[in-house]
Amino acid sequence: MNLLAMPRKLADNPKALADGLLLGDRRAAARAITLVEDGSQKGTELMKLLYPHVGRSMVIGVTGAGGSGKSSLINHIIRVFRSQGRRVGVVAVDPTSPFSGGALLGDRLRFQTHSMDEGVYIRSMASRGYLGGLARATTDVVRIIEAMGNDLVIVETLGAGQDEIDIIHVAQTCVLVLTPGMGDDIQAMKAGIMEIADLIALNKADLDGAETCLRSLEATVRYGFEEKEAAWIPRVIPTVAAGARTDDVRGIEEVAEAILAHQSYLRESRTIHEIQAKRVEQELGLVFRDEVQKAVFKGLKGTGKKRQYIRAILEGRTDPYSVVEEVLRTFLRV
Amino acid sequence: MNLLAMPRKLADNPKALADGLLLGDRRAAARAITLVEDGSQKGTELMKLLYPHVGRSMVIGVTGAGGSGKSSLINHIIRVFRSQGRRVGVVAVDPTSPFSGGALLGDRLRFQTHSMDEGVYIRSMASRGYLGGLARATTDVVRIIEAMGNDLVIVETLGAGQDEIDIIHVAQTCVLVLTPGMGDDIQAMKAGIMEIADLIALNKADLDGAETCLRSLEATVRYGFEEKEAAWIPRVIPTVAAGARTDDVRGIEEVAEAILAHQSYLRESRTIHEIQAKRVEQELGLVFRDEVQKAVFKGLKGTGKKRQYIRAILEGRTDPYSVVEEVLRTFLRV
Repeated sequence: MNLLAMPRKLADNPKALADGLLLGDRRAAARAITLVEDGSQKGTELMKLLYPHVGRSMVIGVTGAGGSGKSSLINHIIRVFRSQGRRVGVVAVDPTSPFSGGALLGDRLRFQTHSMDEGVYIRSMASRGYLGGLARATTDVVRIIEAMGNDLVIVETLGAGQDEIDIIHVAQTCVLVLTPGMGDDIQAMKAGIMEIADLIALNKADLDGAETCLRSLEATVRYGFEEKEAAWIPRVIPTVAAGARTDDVRGIEEVAEAILAHQSYLRESRTIHEIQAKRVEQELGLVFRDEVQKAVFKGLKGTGKKRQYIRAILEGRTDPYSVVEEVLRTFLRV
Repeated sequence: MNLLAMPRKLADNPKALADGLLLGDRRAAARAITLVEDGSQKGTELMKLLYPHVGRSMVIGVTGAGGSGKSSLINHIIRVFRSQGRRVGVVAVDPTSPFSGGALLGDRLRFQTHSMDEGVYIRSMASRGYLGGLARATTDVVRIIEAMGNDLVIVETLGAGQDEIDIIHVAQTCVLVLTPGMGDDIQAMKAGIMEIADLIALNKADLDGAETCLRSLEATVRYGFEEKEAAWIPRVIPTVAAGARTDDVRGIEEVAEAILAHQSYLRESRTIHEIQAKRVEQELGLVFRDEVQKAVFKGLKGTGKKRQYIRAILEGRTDPYSVVEEVLRTFLRV
C-alpha cells in the first residue's frame, strides 16, 4: 500500500490508516502520528479503532538526565532485543535542545545504527506545540507503535517536568539511568529512585567514582526495598554504552535481561493488571483534559468573547479568575 | 503581623493574606503561594483580590540549559539591581533534579548571597505535583511576588517542555543564557533565539571557543534582526559569572543595563501593551484549563463512575476516547 501516492482524503481515512498500522506499515504510522499530534478529530477516531488491538506490548521507560547516555544505552539494548527476534519501537521525548524543534534531526543522529532495520521503528517527539499537551500526544504515539505489532516499546524521557512524569507512568518497567558524576545528588534522588525505578543502570561506569556511586546506590536499594521486603528489588547494573560501537560496551545484556525479568515478574505476580489499570486511568485523565479544552474553546470561538474578556482584564474591570468562572457557568452542567 | 501565631482560619483568609502581601509581608507570601500551589479555591479568591494591584513590575525571564550558569548570573544581576535600590523577586523553575522535589534546598544553595536582604524575595517551584500544572502555579506565583511590591520579578527556567515555554511567555524581557560549549548547536537554536531572546548572555565567556561562539551568535542576530530591520535588536553580551563571588566576574552591569534598555523600549514603543495582552491571554488559558478540570472532576467524584469506566476499558468494552466523549456530553453545554 503506497500511502504517499494515495489521494489525501484516503490517506487520512482513520479506517484505512488503522488497517495499514495493524500490518506494520511505516507510512501509515507516520500519518497516524501526525493526526494525533495535530489533535485532530480523525486522530481520535483512529485511536478508537486501534484500542482493541493494543495493550500486549512491553512498555519500557528509560529515564535519566541529559548527558547520562540514555540514547546510546537504548541503541545497544535494541541490538540485544533484535538479536532475540523481537520487534522494537522507540518514542524519544527528550527536549534537550528545547528551541531547536529538532526532534527530526534527533531520529537520525541518535538511532542511525538501526535505520535500515525493518524491525525497529523510532519516533522523536518535539518538546512543544501539542494542542492537548505532550503527555497526551506521547501516550497516543505509544499506542500507535504498539498497534504496529512491536513486542517492546521503549519510551525515552528526561523525567523533568510534569509532562514527562506523566509519560513515565505509562511505562510498565522503568529503567533509571544515572552516572557517577551525580555522586552527591544521590541523597536527593532517593525519593525518585524509590518511586519509579524498576532497575537502575549506572551508565559511564568506567568513570572515576563509579565504584563509590555503585555502592551508594546499592545501599539505597537495600534500605528502600530489601529491608522492607518489597516484592520486586531493583537491580543496579553498571553499564558502559559510550557510542554506537559495540566494543567498549558493558552491562547491556544484563539490562535487557533485567527488563525481561521484571516483565515476567509483573505477569506472574499479576501486578501487570494493576499497572494496566493505572495506565488506563492516566490515559483517561490526559484525553479528558485535552478534549474538554477543545470542546470549550470551540464553544467560545468566533463569538469574539475572548478578545472582549482580555480587554476587560487589561482595563481592570475584571480578572482572569472571574472570567473563567463566568465561562464555566456558561458551558458546564456541574 | 505574625501570621505563624495566627489561628489557621485567619491565616488562610484571602483578604488578610492579600493585605499582608500588599505590605510586602514574607510570611503572607509563603502562605499565599502554598494556597495557590494546592490549587485551592481560597487561592483563586486571593488571586482575584491581588489582580487589581499587579501588572506594574518588570518581569524578566532568564532561560538556558542546565549547567549554563543561570543561577550565578541571576545572583549577580540581583546585586546590580539592589545597588540601584530596586526590590527584586525571583521565581526559579528549574527541575534539574527532577526526582528530588528538592526545590526548597535550591533556594538556600543557589541564592544564599541574598538571604539576609529584605529587598530580595526568592521562591523555587517544585517541578511537579501541581493540580493545575506547573505553568499556572508559576504565573500565579509571579503575580503574588509582583503584589509584594517588587520592581523586578526574575523567572528562571530551563526552557524545556511545554510548561516552561508557557512560563517564558509570561516574561516581558527574555534573557537567553548560552555557553561556548554548545557551539555546534547554535544552528539548531537559531529558531529559539529568533523567537524568544530579547538579549543573549554568552556565559562562561572565559572558556575556549567563546570568541567563535560570540561571532556566530552576532551573525545570527545580524541576519535575523538587523537585516530585517527589527525594532529591537537583541544584544549579545559575553559574561563570566562563575560563582557567588564578585571578583572574576564580567558583563553583569551590561546585562542589567540591557534589561532596563529593553524595558524602556517596550514602554516607549508602547509594545508593552501587546505584551501585557498576550500575558493576560496566556493566564486566561492556564486558569481555564485548570478550572475546567477541577469542575468536571468534581462532577465525577463520588459517583464511582471512574472505576467503572476503567474496568470497562480494561475488559475491552470501550476505550478512553469514547468514555471521554460520553462524559463530555454529560457535563458540557456545547
